[in-house]
Amino acid sequence: VRWHTADLLNRDELQRLIDDVRPTHLLHLAWYTEPGLYWNSPANLAWAASTLELIRAFGEAGGQRAVLAGTCAEYDVRRGPCQEGVTPEWPTSLYGDCKLAAGRIGRSFASHRGFELACGRLFYVFGPGESASRFVPSVIASLIRGERAVCRHGDLLRDYLYVRDAAAALVALLDSHVTGPVNIASGTPIALRDLVELIGCQVGRIDLVDEVRDADRSTEPPVVAADVTRLATEVGWTPSFSLVAGIDETVAWWRSTGTV
Amino acid sequence: VRWHTADLLNRDELQRLIDDVRPTHLLHLAWYTEPGLYWNSPANLAWAASTLELIRAFGEAGGQRAVLAGTCAEYDVRRGPCQEGVTPEWPTSLYGDCKLAAGRIGRSFASHRGFELACGRLFYVFGPGESASRFVPSVIASLIRGERAVCRHGDLLRDYLYVRDAAAALVALLDSHVTGPVNIASGTPIALRDLVELIGCQVGRIDLVDEVRDADRSTEPPVVAADVTRLATEVGWTPSFSLVAGIDETVAWWRSTGTV
Repeated sequence: VRWHTADLLNRDELQRLIDDVRPTHLLHLAWYTEPGLYWNSPANLAWAASTLELIRAFGEAGGQRAVLAGTCAEYDVRRGPCQEGVTPEWPTSLYGDCKLAAGRIGRSFASHRGFELACGRLFYVFGPGESASRFVPSVIASLIRGERAVCRHGDLLRDYLYVRDAAAALVALLDSHVTGPVNIASGTPIALRDLVELIGCQVGRIDLVDEVRDADRSTEPPVVAADVTRLATEVGWTPSFSLVAGIDETVAWWRSTGTV
Repeated sequence: VRWHTADLLNRDELQRLIDDVRPTHLLHLAWYTEPGLYWNSPANLAWAASTLELIRAFGEAGGQRAVLAGTCAEYDVRRGPCQEGVTPEWPTSLYGDCKLAAGRIGRSFASHRGFELACGRLFYVFGPGESASRFVPSVIASLIRGERAVCRHGDLLRDYLYVRDAAAALVALLDSHVTGPVNIASGTPIALRDLVELIGCQVGRIDLVDEVRDADRSTEPPVVAADVTRLATEVGWTPSFSLVAGIDETVAWWRSTGTV
């Protein structure tokens, strides 16, 4: 592995990077993802613009295959389990709009330019290194500290994938010849109530898990589920980690950091 | 009128322009439009990226209302007269993909940021200053030179709008509070055969007009028509020039240039 560093929001640096490396393959994950802020931040426009510049430079430098990070937020998730090419694409956030647009333009450019491009649409991912303010780390941190962990939206079903599996799936997708959108998810959604209880068991503090049942959740879709047929049959990839195994590693990692 | 000059593909110049002018209103027409090349050029990615940067800078500098130039190429034109919000958006070119994406992201960003944004979707425009290689100028030039003008796709129906009307419609749209996509067109498509004959009459050389009826047109949609209800009723604008009046001015302009 050779590391190259560049600020992709700087067009000159971006072009220099491509000119120096002349990559045959591109796995593009960079974006603005500050928890709570990224959904409708103007930074999404800058990252969409940067992504277009990157794909263009990659294609013009003779790149052969690119994989972009997409998102479940590109779908109309209320239409049942999201399936590529079937579930309507209907973002309700600037983040989803920008990811969808970048992927669509990328695919169109790639097909005209004659290289391959796929979009790995990530759903919910958890694991070591996640921002402490997000759901899974905040539950883990509370329980490790001996504080109560309150689940306010226990009925919501979400598809959670362990981060090492998400990474492996992206690599498998890059190594394949599959093009277009491909869901990257476990295929099995879990109620947030069950996820919190699973974490409670792993931390050994199930006694600290509480649930509030009167929480207002009018703006949250009840189910965000993924159809993973393309990933399993066309890319040929399935997860290696059970949810329990992923939570186990994640709890161990948080304990090892000594920050909670 | 005060002119400011900037290269919008240069992010620093773009930001400096917005910082200097601090515009309340933005009418954004710049794009790559080289005849024959623009449909699938990589330059579309650069202009889409630039448009996102421009909208972002405009919104963050307190801009109130923006109008972007859209295109009939954003629609699935085979579904009959294109109507905003009804006809499916289904581009078949990189140009259409990029225009559609820029407009969608622009509208999403504007609604989150709290300013107004509309997209004037232009259909076919003709008039003084048009590139000589395009359809109307090439017919005019042939006839003025005393050469035969051959119409190879006489059956195709297209909506042609005179450029001064197109400009007036864009200004009317900017001066309104209408948001989202708005078709900018005459509302009345004409067969290319009839358009060429009209030009023949205006130039006074109808004797030079020919038609080839065996031309292959498998890749061309038979009809590109616009529903102009939004433009007429919501913006309150209708064309000032008849097709004959527009052709008349255009022929006079080409004669005046002395280049044909």
